[in-house]
Amino acid sequence: MKIEGRNSVYELLKTDKEIDKILVQKDLKDDASKRLLNIIRSHQIKVQLVDKYIIEKESTDKRSQGFIAYVSDYKYFELEDIIEDCKEKDGFVVVLNEITDPHNLGSIIRVCECAGVDGIIIAKNRCASVSDTVMRISEGALNHIKVARVVNINQTIEKLKENGFWAYGVEVDGEPIYKSDLSGKVCLVIGGEDTGVKKLTKTKCDKIISIPMFGKVNSLNASVACGVAVYEVVRQRIKG
Amino acid sequence: MKIEGRNSVYELLKTDKEIDKILVQKDLKDDASKRLLNIIRSHQIKVQLVDKYIIEKESTDKRSQGFIAYVSDYKYFELEDIIEDCKEKDGFVVVLNEITDPHNLGSIIRVCECAGVDGIIIAKNRCASVSDTVMRISEGALNHIKVARVVNINQTIEKLKENGFWAYGVEVDGEPIYKSDLSGKVCLVIGGEDTGVKKLTKTKCDKIISIPMFGKVNSLNASVACGVAVYEVVRQRIKG
Repeated sequence: MKIEGRNSVYELLKTDKEIDKILVQKDLKDDASKRLLNIIRSHQIKVQLVDKYIIEKESTDKRSQGFIAYVSDYKYFELEDIIEDCKEKDGFVVVLNEITDPHNLGSIIRVCECAGVDGIIIAKNRCASVSDTVMRISEGALNHIKVARVVNINQTIEKLKENGFWAYGVEVDGEPIYKSDLSGKVCLVIGGEDTGVKKLTKTKCDKIISIPMFGKVNSLNASVACGVAVYEVVRQRIKG
Repeated sequence: MKIEGRNSVYELLKTDKEIDKILVQKDLKDDASKRLLNIIRSHQIKVQLVDKYIIEKESTDKRSQGFIAYVSDYKYFELEDIIEDCKEKDGFVVVLNEITDPHNLGSIIRVCECAGVDGIIIAKNRCASVSDTVMRISEGALNHIKVARVVNINQTIEKLKENGFWAYGVEVDGEPIYKSDLSGKVCLVIGGEDTGVKKLTKTKCDKIISIPMFGKVNSLNASVACGVAVYEVVRQRIKG
């Protein structure tokens, strides 16, 4: 859903609605616009500064005044919901560390749903949020898996560990995944497209595990890496 | 590379250059254009009929006369090259059955290169061909793995089998992949985004193997499915 115009966007910021991003026209010179841009930035919302013609193309009612906010209709779940679901079983959650591409997020949601993952946890900042594109790419899988959005990924991993989860960061410099015992409650931490699993986040993981590489490029697309790792957990569970 | 104009496109068809696709302006009424369109179609080349403004946008020299051909700079390998490479070892090839999305093709090339696959075989028709997009999405992996393009996928599978390969079709209705012995020379056949592995192609496979599904959507993106299957072969090889 789009919210347009200075006042409407300002009012939107006071609510607890999930804002995917705000398009702001470049080079707005008036004080009211500059003030609003500062307020938006203080909320740590993703801002895209774009040319006037993009604003005009995106605007539905042509009264945007250079501001268009995209509000997610998706109702995120709480981390606690997912933990609760896993109380009586060997739960399986996937934590995403700065996945910024909506196509990757959609594809990850799709493979996680297929693999029977109980929940996906994404960060509020520096991570693609659930949007129409994500829904489309997930092929509807988003309707059948819980996605929670949290402020702090590192604290979330701590909390999962307190609740009996083993946290495994999927990165290049770890133990070969095929030698790792991935039984019990599992939390897989998948790194971002460019950043991988962040340094501090790695220290929160019980173990870093790696997908073996035999080529020259040796970096996998985030959703493919997620698929390979998630299915290794599945394989080990099936083998019992 | 773009080749523009009726005559240039006509001359191009006489060469053995790899043509990715030809954009043809809709509603061309003159006889010369209609004739050329028929000739193009008889060559079984991918044709996209587009509006005039698309032709104008894509045209470099503004003398396209409604015809723009995209020629691949990529030099495909021969199937025989790949078979030869695998002569003295347990080779590993991936055959793509109608992958039409260049993003999926690029992503598949990337994961195959990482997994140490010896070669990828795609079809001339109804399959995305190697283009700039594919190169970009593969993150350069295309430079380090052999891709062959063949007229007939089914005959290719037969030929691979004659050369000691076991052909495994990855589809929904087969033996669970984690129960399958994937040792020896392996040829994995990956289905298209919409069509899966075609019926006749399935009959050419020694076995159909399936990635287990636990969700409601239960269909994986082609590149993710390829990644999961390719890495199960890798895992079995590592375990020896």
